[in-house]
Amino acid sequence: MLEPTLKAFFANCQARTETTLERLLPAGDTPPLRLHQAMRYAVLGGGKRIRPTLAYAAAQAVGIEPQRVDTAAAALEMIHAYSLVHDDLPAMDDDDLRRGRPSCHKAFDEATAILVGDALQTLAFHALASDPEFPGDATVRVAMIENLARASGSIGMAGGQALDLESEGRELDLVMLENIHIHKTGALIRASVNMAALAQPGLPTEQAEGLDHYAKCIGLAFQIQDDLLDVEGETAVIGKQSGADAAHHKATYPSLMGIGPAHEAADDLVKDALHSLSVFGDSADPLRWIARYIVDRDR
Amino acid sequence: MLEPTLKAFFANCQARTETTLERLLPAGDTPPLRLHQAMRYAVLGGGKRIRPTLAYAAAQAVGIEPQRVDTAAAALEMIHAYSLVHDDLPAMDDDDLRRGRPSCHKAFDEATAILVGDALQTLAFHALASDPEFPGDATVRVAMIENLARASGSIGMAGGQALDLESEGRELDLVMLENIHIHKTGALIRASVNMAALAQPGLPTEQAEGLDHYAKCIGLAFQIQDDLLDVEGETAVIGKQSGADAAHHKATYPSLMGIGPAHEAADDLVKDALHSLSVFGDSADPLRWIARYIVDRDR
Repeated sequence: MLEPTLKAFFANCQARTETTLERLLPAGDTPPLRLHQAMRYAVLGGGKRIRPTLAYAAAQAVGIEPQRVDTAAAALEMIHAYSLVHDDLPAMDDDDLRRGRPSCHKAFDEATAILVGDALQTLAFHALASDPEFPGDATVRVAMIENLARASGSIGMAGGQALDLESEGRELDLVMLENIHIHKTGALIRASVNMAALAQPGLPTEQAEGLDHYAKCIGLAFQIQDDLLDVEGETAVIGKQSGADAAHHKATYPSLMGIGPAHEAADDLVKDALHSLSVFGDSADPLRWIARYIVDRDR
Repeated sequence: MLEPTLKAFFANCQARTETTLERLLPAGDTPPLRLHQAMRYAVLGGGKRIRPTLAYAAAQAVGIEPQRVDTAAAALEMIHAYSLVHDDLPAMDDDDLRRGRPSCHKAFDEATAILVGDALQTLAFHALASDPEFPGDATVRVAMIENLARASGSIGMAGGQALDLESEGRELDLVMLENIHIHKTGALIRASVNMAALAQPGLPTEQAEGLDHYAKCIGLAFQIQDDLLDVEGETAVIGKQSGADAAHHKATYPSLMGIGPAHEAADDLVKDALHSLSVFGDSADPLRWIARYIVDRDR
């Protein structure tokens, strides 16, 4: 359950994200029509906007205006959306449902879904390079582009997905599983939080390091909770088929550790994350709320 | 046939491109192994390196050192390679051969090929944002990233591919065909030439405009020649199945105009391209050689 303060914070961040995405995405009535409509379908179809919300929460922690990370927040969400579209493809995870709706290749077609992912990735970098409403200089743009690229390429998100594919049918231990998730989902979550530090180049080192450590902890906690939801959640609530991991015989934290210890591991990571925020005052409260929310959420 | 001067110029540009790609691509013995090996397979598998060569030729035209466009040349080639890997997928053009070898999804697998394309695109932007050997400042990096993103996204290369998909099974006229190719192949060729102007921010407007017009003309000429090669060429020479367009009932310049008029159209575009270089002296000779080569090549 979301506490009212976090609920309001999330709603505000989601609204900002929708506004920026709407501004940056191509209109659905400009050619190529089908591609642009499918891009909008993939990005504007709900979603929790956790990555943008983390960027905004980190911006508040370091005391900068949300405007400074608007473009980065939208770019993070575009990269996340592109990865979901490609991960859902038949040759990858072959998922028909996403966010309670047909996945992009089911709502459109496979070729369009491949291009949607490709074009969303491009748009993320394009936005950071050229959004006229971006309030930073070229140095900040470049730093954000570098941050996003490192987190999403072959040594980040895409690399984690590749490790995951390589591991199929093999016995995984916890170290290997953690390595997959640090890359597959952790890297982009870390990049989300770090956008705020990049928007504020003079940030004291201990604050930048605190944010980075926080992000690493909650990234892993987020994945453990995702695995737990897959075991414990209901399809209607989580918006994709529950038990899908077990059906695919995928190694998960609960399958390797047991459900109880997996909950404990997630809780410990959240404690560690909160500890690394001790260098911040009240301004980091949204980051604290999010850390607790990650292990409390039911979808 | 390549004349000796162009042959030497091409060889030099290809060597520079290989060196930069080798430096920027992840090593094949670093994890994720399969992804990194597949990325190298897709990029280092030969290829004419026309886009890098255009960037170097334009650099020579405007009188700057090739070092200034090394990173951009490699990034252009990574984007080109990613587009080939995704275009060859079963859900797209379903091509088993590329550059005379198995296409990426045949040599590896479909999931890996999807990730290869994704990660190569990311690496292109990553390199422009962070290559330590890049000799320009952040403003030049951002301009090159913007140029590359505009050329390759939904209003560029990916958009052209989407228009091509949308047109399948429909009667195309020349205007629609040209619109597809201006985006699908023309945009990245144009971006290649324009990298040199971006590397040299003080360039006189008439030179920048001359380069841009040259690039638009040869981009279209290149595609017409590609279509002609598909009709007239031999599989062994062009490295992919000849007659593939006719087998797929695709509209091409020769099928819409006839073979003779298609040759004339390509020749006229090359004349137009050469005319737009009149603002340059001998330094633009490599661009002139390339323009002539485009309509003379046999692969």
